[in-house]
Amino acid sequence: MRDGPSITGRDVVTLDTFSAEEIRAVIERARAHKTVGHGSPLRGRSLAMVFFDPSLRTRASFAIAFSSLGGTVIDMVAGRDLWALEMQEGAVMDDLADEHVQDAARVLSEYADIIAIRALGKEGDWARDRRDRVIVSFQKHATVPIFNMESVLDHPCQAWGDALTLEEELGDLPGRKLTLAWAYHPKARPLAVPHGISMMACKLGMDLTISHPDGFPLDARVQQSLEHTAATSGGSLRSVSSLEEAVDGADVVYAASWGSIDRHGSPEKERSMREQHRERRITAALMASTNGARFMHAMPIRRNVEVDDAVVDAPGSLVVRQAGNRLHIQRALFQEVLGV
Amino acid sequence: MRDGPSITGRDVVTLDTFSAEEIRAVIERARAHKTVGHGSPLRGRSLAMVFFDPSLRTRASFAIAFSSLGGTVIDMVAGRDLWALEMQEGAVMDDLADEHVQDAARVLSEYADIIAIRALGKEGDWARDRRDRVIVSFQKHATVPIFNMESVLDHPCQAWGDALTLEEELGDLPGRKLTLAWAYHPKARPLAVPHGISMMACKLGMDLTISHPDGFPLDARVQQSLEHTAATSGGSLRSVSSLEEAVDGADVVYAASWGSIDRHGSPEKERSMREQHRERRITAALMASTNGARFMHAMPIRRNVEVDDAVVDAPGSLVVRQAGNRLHIQRALFQEVLGV
Amino acid sequence: MRDGPSITGRDVVTLDTFSAEEIRAVIERARAHKTVGHGSPLRGRSLAMVFFDPSLRTRASFAIAFSSLGGTVIDMVAGRDLWALEMQEGAVMDDLADEHVQDAARVLSEYADIIAIRALGKEGDWARDRRDRVIVSFQKHATVPIFNMESVLDHPCQAWGDALTLEEELGDLPGRKLTLAWAYHPKARPLAVPHGISMMACKLGMDLTISHPDGFPLDARVQQSLEHTAATSGGSLRSVSSLEEAVDGADVVYAASWGSIDRHGSPEKERSMREQHRERRITAALMASTNGARFMHAMPIRRNVEVDDAVVDAPGSLVVRQAGNRLHIQRALFQEVLGV
Repeated sequence: MRDGPSITGRDVVTLDTFSAEEIRAVIERARAHKTVGHGSPLRGRSLAMVFFDPSLRTRASFAIAFSSLGGTVIDMVAGRDLWALEMQEGAVMDDLADEHVQDAARVLSEYADIIAIRALGKEGDWARDRRDRVIVSFQKHATVPIFNMESVLDHPCQAWGDALTLEEELGDLPGRKLTLAWAYHPKARPLAVPHGISMMACKLGMDLTISHPDGFPLDARVQQSLEHTAATSGGSLRSVSSLEEAVDGADVVYAASWGSIDRHGSPEKERSMREQHRERRITAALMASTNGARFMHAMPIRRNVEVDDAVVDAPGSLVVRQAGNRLHIQRALFQEVLGV
Repeated sequence: MRDGPSITGRDVVTLDTFSAEEIRAVIERARAHKTVGHGSPLRGRSLAMVFFDPSLRTRASFAIAFSSLGGTVIDMVAGRDLWALEMQEGAVMDDLADEHVQDAARVLSEYADIIAIRALGKEGDWARDRRDRVIVSFQKHATVPIFNMESVLDHPCQAWGDALTLEEELGDLPGRKLTLAWAYHPKARPLAVPHGISMMACKLGMDLTISHPDGFPLDARVQQSLEHTAATSGGSLRSVSSLEEAVDGADVVYAASWGSIDRHGSPEKERSMREQHRERRITAALMASTNGARFMHAMPIRRNVEVDDAVVDAPGSLVVRQAGNRLHIQRALFQEVLGV
Repeated sequence: MRDGPSITGRDVVTLDTFSAEEIRAVIERARAHKTVGHGSPLRGRSLAMVFFDPSLRTRASFAIAFSSLGGTVIDMVAGRDLWALEMQEGAVMDDLADEHVQDAARVLSEYADIIAIRALGKEGDWARDRRDRVIVSFQKHATVPIFNMESVLDHPCQAWGDALTLEEELGDLPGRKLTLAWAYHPKARPLAVPHGISMMACKLGMDLTISHPDGFPLDARVQQSLEHTAATSGGSLRSVSSLEEAVDGADVVYAASWGSIDRHGSPEKERSMREQHRERRITAALMASTNGARFMHAMPIRRNVEVDDAVVDAPGSLVVRQAGNRLHIQRALFQEVLGV
């Protein structure tokens, strides 16, 4: 029906699999439909959401987006509504797992037109957790599109909504400077959000600066992929350890916190390393040295720990708009993937 | 569109903020629409329900009322779907709370047209719990109407449904005698229901008698407000310790149980005080001394402890109708508040 | 409106209460509507699902079937959304139960057009558990139809979906040979599925062979009822201890596992008895001795413990279709029972 790139039938699991043109087409659709009525294009369609970890924004935006287009949503919590899943193919299932992921995936494909999954790794070993076995297994065995509602490695729908927010605020993105700034958080937070927004910035040709303390790099293979993407898109990528230097001249400061991958399986060591950077916080003084930068954060925000109230509540803060745009980008993504 | 008072855009948190005329207008709408088709006036609208405490009747009536009018409902359980919330403004959030209520309220306002909250206080100090910090914080920070699904102080939708039931049964309410009768319950029950029905009776000009053992008063400021309201509405308010005397000549006996506010933070002392009144129960003999009174209770009912089977199951018992009317009053409230 | 048998207004709790003609009429409707649009015949209707035990397939198929026909679904988990229920009539409720089942049933009848319940017995005594007190109490007190989403004794919607699958695959069922084959499972599984499929096979005039180790009979009264039903329908029923002999010449092998009723209250004894049959598993070699039989299982499947991957993943395996057909049979059942 529509001209241009189509993502109909595709999984939305990682941004890596989408071209800049495809990404922009979804953003255009979200912007165009933001203020108009939506009708019921998803009548008769259903979405199965499966949560291995809790969720507010993602759960609400997915459920309301799908329902408000006339579709049916079912929400399942693993371990409560879902049996413990076996991931290993060929396994002799005489242990704890009651159902094989290949059966769960095929059955849910009978009931739903899209299966959406949130699963943060719990194996305590980065090399294993980064494989995102739950979502990859569902991709392999399901016969309908899979959406990633946040995995160990990526959070594409968050990043897609952020890109909508960036375009609304800044217009053309190539050449605009976005700084991803690590900030202290009392818990070791996942890497999915920093990975996602970094990949999005590189895909869209922005000049990305990543700033974090020593010992808190992004995943090494994601970093390689970012470098490759930036080189291809005409964007740029640099790492700057000093927070002050990193935000100098920035158009956007995107604050996030994440744990140390090297100490992923040693919570106590990870914590003592992180605690050394308790003062790394986004302040109004820091924002003053930017190019009048907008402030972004994927939430939830630890106020006055990651970032001062004065920054979150300033006119240039986009955090509430980011959350709201998740609903609009989700409506566009569901319609694009279902081809309606 | 409609003539008469409008409550469009208002919070439904406490009855105190509504005039008798506004209350009656909603009841009229509920009665008029009880038996007709409803269409889909809430298509494209969404309701976010947030539960800090469990619920059957309220949850079912809110969800079905909103959905059956074409809207979308999302149901969140605090601590499971929602992060632990910080309530203190300006807090340095380095402790347990992961998200500030001001952020949660603003984000949910992006997704939902109404936010409904159930939160019973847990601080163990009446002066603190009675402030209803959760719901008051949401009122302050949300940009959409807030509905109270039961707080420490009030349960306005229960009382509104009860008023619909009373009008259906008794017609004009001014001058009719309603006795709120404390009955023994093995647990210290909240005060929201007795507060709500008392305020409703006073608003609508009924003659209200409250009967409870020594040491089980309503909240002192609510009591003041009831006295003021009764004086204004042409109703009356009296306290009668003796249950027998209190129900004499009543048109309605509304049974409820509630804990002792003075011992709110000392469960063992509260219990031993309450246990002295184990025999305070609504019996058929007691009902015989009324003016053929209807029996009401907000449920759940401890049968043969609060009230005898013979009373609950008698023809004059309205308890099932009360529960059913919550659906009808809720449909009217949602439409009035959303102005559709 | 339609000719033929009507099940409008009936409870769907046990297959015993339906004639073969009624069962076939629902299957016909499900087949006819499988590929056509469904419209919104359930607009304005609501379904209350109450779970005392977890569920994937049943929950998803019920919720999506009802919603996709335009209805509203509310999903309640006992103990979380529902108060602890008293089952005994006339009880003095001064113990743990906060609400009587007769009140919960009547209130839910005010909100919902159908109440669906999953409740597996937990009393640890077969004679008590087999009474299915929760669902029977709801049947007694509710004023709307009750659906069984799996009880101790039966799982009629599973069996009804299985019958749809059988008819699609085999055409006319009278005279076709179905073998219900007990297979080892590390847990003592419920008897509802084997009871349900056995009753369905007998109702539809199939030649049913039941094969299980000594000490794992079906419920004695269910067994009597099966014998009576087979005699009436023109089908047949036999028990064959040897698995090899039981599947010889079968058109369908339906694998299931279930616990030993005699040791229902003694988990350790039950386990040690069951462990003696660890090798009882459906293998490709076993399937080779059938009449090219289809393989069926209600899921979840313990792969390579109950049945080998080679059987589950063979072309003759119907397990995914069985799960999918639950959605189609459920749409037909809801419409038949609600008379739309």
